[in-house]
Amino acid sequence: MSIAAEKSKSSKAGVLPLKYEQGKLLMLDQRRLPHELVYFDATTLDAMCFAIEDMVVRGAPSIGVAAAYGYALEAMRLEERLDQKDALEAALLSVRDRLDATRPTAVNLHWALMRMWQRSIELLGSGLLKPGKELLSCADEIFNEHIESNRALSEFGAGLVPQKAAIITHCNAGPLAACGWGTALGVIRFAHFAGKEVSVFVDETRPRNQGSKLTMWELHQDQVPCTLVCDSMSGHLMQHNKVDMVITGADRIARNGDSANKIGTYNLAVLAHHHRIPFYIAAPLSTFDPGLMDGSGIPIEERNQNEVLTIDGAPLTVAGGKAFNPAFDVTPAALIAGIITEKGVLLPDFKVSISKALGL
Amino acid sequence: MSIAAEKSKSSKAGVLPLKYEQGKLLMLDQRRLPHELVYFDATTLDAMCFAIEDMVVRGAPSIGVAAAYGYALEAMRLEERLDQKDALEAALLSVRDRLDATRPTAVNLHWALMRMWQRSIELLGSGLLKPGKELLSCADEIFNEHIESNRALSEFGAGLVPQKAAIITHCNAGPLAACGWGTALGVIRFAHFAGKEVSVFVDETRPRNQGSKLTMWELHQDQVPCTLVCDSMSGHLMQHNKVDMVITGADRIARNGDSANKIGTYNLAVLAHHHRIPFYIAAPLSTFDPGLMDGSGIPIEERNQNEVLTIDGAPLTVAGGKAFNPAFDVTPAALIAGIITEKGVLLPDFKVSISKALGL
Repeated sequence: MSIAAEKSKSSKAGVLPLKYEQGKLLMLDQRRLPHELVYFDATTLDAMCFAIEDMVVRGAPSIGVAAAYGYALEAMRLEERLDQKDALEAALLSVRDRLDATRPTAVNLHWALMRMWQRSIELLGSGLLKPGKELLSCADEIFNEHIESNRALSEFGAGLVPQKAAIITHCNAGPLAACGWGTALGVIRFAHFAGKEVSVFVDETRPRNQGSKLTMWELHQDQVPCTLVCDSMSGHLMQHNKVDMVITGADRIARNGDSANKIGTYNLAVLAHHHRIPFYIAAPLSTFDPGLMDGSGIPIEERNQNEVLTIDGAPLTVAGGKAFNPAFDVTPAALIAGIITEKGVLLPDFKVSISKALGL
Repeated sequence: MSIAAEKSKSSKAGVLPLKYEQGKLLMLDQRRLPHELVYFDATTLDAMCFAIEDMVVRGAPSIGVAAAYGYALEAMRLEERLDQKDALEAALLSVRDRLDATRPTAVNLHWALMRMWQRSIELLGSGLLKPGKELLSCADEIFNEHIESNRALSEFGAGLVPQKAAIITHCNAGPLAACGWGTALGVIRFAHFAGKEVSVFVDETRPRNQGSKLTMWELHQDQVPCTLVCDSMSGHLMQHNKVDMVITGADRIARNGDSANKIGTYNLAVLAHHHRIPFYIAAPLSTFDPGLMDGSGIPIEERNQNEVLTIDGAPLTVAGGKAFNPAFDVTPAALIAGIITEKGVLLPDFKVSISKALGL
């Protein structure tokens, strides 16, 4: 992980969501940005599960990376007290499943954990009964791959951005979310660093305000011109020709291109379609779910209604009021102009282009 | 005004936004609902202008009624010190223009003030140099007419609501906004009282959260089943067939049916259109601007960016962040299924039906 951290400092990868220091896995507490830059100690398995569930760390790629480290660190503890292969394997399976159950929608979590699990099986199968160190290397590998794939997809995506462009984005798909350059924000940042005149309308992204809190903060770090807007303002902006393109990240993409992302993404996609503005998704290949033929099978996490009913603990509405709080929605492939990945920009027919990119 | 206040108590008109007690004009402070039910003293002209600008009172019809009273009360003060017709007329013109400049988008404000002004001219022309009492009666008349027209349009609109219906609404268009039954909420409340199984998804309506604060409160008063949602969730609800119709109020309607309403209404209209869900506007005839052929001439108020950057005074985003804060948007007539008025439901071709309703 030290390698990745250094890379981040010496490049434009951005502020990374986690770091390993003196045996501790520290997560930048995304709940407290932009007001405070503090780290949350997620070294124990309990703490890591809480960090993912409570969104200390969020963003599909980042929760995958975080879970990989959580798994590896727990493996290092387990191998100290379990010296039988079968017992260790059973314990690791239980760790995998516990981490996998923290959040249901983003497939990167599952993807990273399956990769850690496969590696565990291989290591145990080869007779190694202390696989922890190797598993930590595997987590490092996943982390470093994310930085690389982020950079590659950012560069591919930047090619789609005109020399002067006003872009609207939703939620946060920057370095904090993606462990590296970012996905949607990686594209925007890459275009900015390449000298394009990019300006960004940042959807505040209710109810957790990741746009106001994280995307605005990340864009300010890099001095990318940006303007915060409420989620309800996107149609008005498009109607007045103030938006040239829409780019968001994704949490799970089906084989036909249907894409789950933060609630409100679908509104943006329909509005972009109505105004004939191109709508792009940016996501690494780990966000694709080869097991799903279309978006109808994507589980949509429903979070606590208090996220809508209150803000910072203070009530926003009448006592006893109830709320609906789906955390994601699914944008049908037909509304998507292209999906920006580390293997290039996938275009419709997505069934063909996605299968090809995934080597299926 | 006492008559109107009594009516409100004895009917289902709802909680009214203002009352006159012991020579004082008191406005229910809508900034502090639902947490506190307190009144703001808007007896002086300065206080009334502040009350409208700062949204102590809001909602197109209600600010029209409030301004009518503000004008009448100031006339009663002016006539005490001005005994020349010309001087009084000039002073009243200045009062009219000052009130008219408080908020630019809703045309009801202008409509009510022009009516007060015409009455003043008539009264002064007939030789009455103490027109205040008559002008207060004129404000009472406007208030009572609102309650009646609200009731009538609510009944017409309720006819459009199926026996069982899930309705989404935006902002607040209830008794607080409309001085009476409400417009969009009047329709919903009327259908509910008539025994229909109505349930409401209430858009929280960022940035001022009139949905969370006022609409949820008003629906709870009448025990109408309601669920608070973020503005970003409407597409997801429609995609999953959870919405049968959309009803909102309006702040200004052009001769062709183009309608200005709270920012975010246009998003809802485009989404409803995409999902083939009927989108209705409910508004009294005082909301129509006969001087505007289409919506392109409607002035869109841009409010202070701090409404987006902060909540209850606390920062929501990075220090130095900037925001865009248009308070309204314009929904083109082509997206509107019908406009519910006290003269019935106007249908396309709106150029024809609106002209007929306005007697033009």
